[in-house]
Amino acid sequence: MKTDYEVAVIGTGPAGMEAALTLKARNIDFVLFGNTICSDKISKAHMVKNYLGMLDVSGEDMANSFAKQLSANGIEICKKGIHQVFSMGDYFQLQTKTNEFYRADSVILATGVNFGTPYEGEKEFLGKGVSYCATCDGMFYREKTIAVVVSSKEEEGELDFLAGLAEKIYYFPLYPVDELSYENVEIIKEKPLCIEGQNGKVSAIVTEQEKFCVDGVFLLRENVSPAQLVVGLDMEERHIAVNRMLETNIPGCYACGDITGVPYQYIKAAGEGNVAAISAVTYLQGKKRRD
Amino acid sequence: MKTDYEVAVIGTGPAGMEAALTLKARNIDFVLFGNTICSDKISKAHMVKNYLGMLDVSGEDMANSFAKQLSANGIEICKKGIHQVFSMGDYFQLQTKTNEFYRADSVILATGVNFGTPYEGEKEFLGKGVSYCATCDGMFYREKTIAVVVSSKEEEGELDFLAGLAEKIYYFPLYPVDELSYENVEIIKEKPLCIEGQNGKVSAIVTEQEKFCVDGVFLLRENVSPAQLVVGLDMEERHIAVNRMLETNIPGCYACGDITGVPYQYIKAAGEGNVAAISAVTYLQGKKRRD
Repeated sequence: MKTDYEVAVIGTGPAGMEAALTLKARNIDFVLFGNTICSDKISKAHMVKNYLGMLDVSGEDMANSFAKQLSANGIEICKKGIHQVFSMGDYFQLQTKTNEFYRADSVILATGVNFGTPYEGEKEFLGKGVSYCATCDGMFYREKTIAVVVSSKEEEGELDFLAGLAEKIYYFPLYPVDELSYENVEIIKEKPLCIEGQNGKVSAIVTEQEKFCVDGVFLLRENVSPAQLVVGLDMEERHIAVNRMLETNIPGCYACGDITGVPYQYIKAAGEGNVAAISAVTYLQGKKRRD
Repeated sequence: MKTDYEVAVIGTGPAGMEAALTLKARNIDFVLFGNTICSDKISKAHMVKNYLGMLDVSGEDMANSFAKQLSANGIEICKKGIHQVFSMGDYFQLQTKTNEFYRADSVILATGVNFGTPYEGEKEFLGKGVSYCATCDGMFYREKTIAVVVSSKEEEGELDFLAGLAEKIYYFPLYPVDELSYENVEIIKEKPLCIEGQNGKVSAIVTEQEKFCVDGVFLLRENVSPAQLVVGLDMEERHIAVNRMLETNIPGCYACGDITGVPYQYIKAAGEGNVAAISAVTYLQGKKRRD
C-alpha cells in the first residue's frame, strides 16, 4: 500500500475537491482523504443559486456533478478518517483512526466546520482519560468503565472494538439509535454536558440528570476540531488562522474552505481550495530546491 | 436612467460575475459594469481542467455558460467604461468614460490585471498633459497637437472625437490597424517608450527612433490600473491591497479576482467575487443601522 505522497488533502467538500483537481492539473502526487463526496450539508441543499458555472443546481446534483468530475480526472478518495497530523519539520505524519500511518511533504486541511463545540472539561482532560480514537487508546481501558460519545452512525464501528475490551460502557449516541446487542453496553439517551475529573484524571461524565463514574471518555466525532487534528495549529476562535495564500502557522500546512472562516459558501470554499493547492505546489518547489 | 445603486460591480470576469450572482441572491440593488462576458483571456483558453463544477470545459463554452447564467438570473451588463471612482465618504461617485455619473453605496472592483505597465513619465505628468479620458479632457486640447495611444480597437471611437478638436494627432495604435480617413491624424507604428516634459508639463512622446513634440498625451486603455481608477486606493505593487474579507483601505470598497494577486485562476476569482459581495452586503447592513 502506498503511504508516501507529496501532498495529503483532508476533506472532500468543495475546498478539498478543488484542491485535488488543481494538484492533479499540476501533476502532483497526492492523496485525498474523506468520506463521501461533500457533506450532508451540501447534499441536502435545495437549490444553489450563486455558484458561477452551475445554473440553479440542487445540492444533490451538485454533489453528483463534483463526484463525476473527480472520477473523470482519475481522482480516488481514500476513505480513511484521519485522527491526527504531526508536523515532523520537513514532512508530515498522518495517523488514521485505524492506526495506519501516511507521510506527506505538505498537508491541505479542508475539513469543514462540522466539529461541534468541545464539552466542558474536554480540553482539560485530553490524554488524561479523554480520547478521540478507539483504535489508538482502547487498550488502556481493558476491563475498565468508559463512556463512548458518538456523533454519527459512521463512527459506530468503534463501539464494537471497545465493547470487546472494556468491562462496562455507557454509550451516548448523538443520533437516533436502535437497540444494541452488547451485554456490557448501556445506551444513555441524555446528552453529555461535561466531563469531570479527580487527581488530574477523568472521573465522571455528567448529564442534566445524572453523573456516570468512568475511567475514560471516548469522543468519536466524524470531524475533530482542527486544533485537535493538527498539533500546534494556530486558531482564531473556531477557525484556522490563515493568510491570503492560505498558509497556516505551520510551514507546508495549508487550510481552505469553511474551516478558514465565513462566508460558508461553496464557491468561496472551492476558490480557496485552488489557492491552497497552488501554495502547496509552490512550497514543494521551494523544498526541492533546498533538498 | 437609473444611476443610483446600493452596489456597483466593475468588471465582468469570473470575479465580477460571481459577485453579481451573490448580490442578486441577497436581493441587493446593484449595477454590473463591463464590456463583454469575460476577457479574451478566458474565451481563448483551450481547456480548463480545474474549475470544480465544470468538467473539461473550453474557455469559450465557459464564457457562454457564465453569460447564460447571468441572463437566467436577470442580470444585465451595463456596457459603460468606468473612468474614475471617487470615495465621497458615505458613498461613491463613478464617472464613466463618456462623462456620465453613477452613485453607489459600495463598490466592488473586479477589473483584472490586463492594464499594462505605465510608461516612463506617465505618473509624473498625469493631469499635466497626460489623460486617460478623451471625453473628460479633450476640450483642453482644442487646436493643439496631441498623441493618442490606444490599446484596443474598442477604444478607437474616442479618436473621432479628438480628431474633431485637435489640430494634429499622432496616433499610436497598439494593435493592427487599417488606414484612417482623418486629415489631421498621422498613424505611428512604433511603440511609445516614454513621455517627456518641460516646466512641469508634457512636451513630447518618445519612441525608439523618434521624438514627437506634443501638448498632451491620451492613453486610452480598456482597463486602467486600479490606482488610477480609484483615487486613494492602496496597492501592493501591481495588485490591490486587501485582507481576507477583501476589504481595501477604503471603507465600502472591495476588490476581487486577479487584481488582488496570484494565483490568476478562474475559480479563485469566482470565490473571491462571492466573498467581496458578502462583505459589501455586511457593509450595507452596518450602514443602514448607522443611518
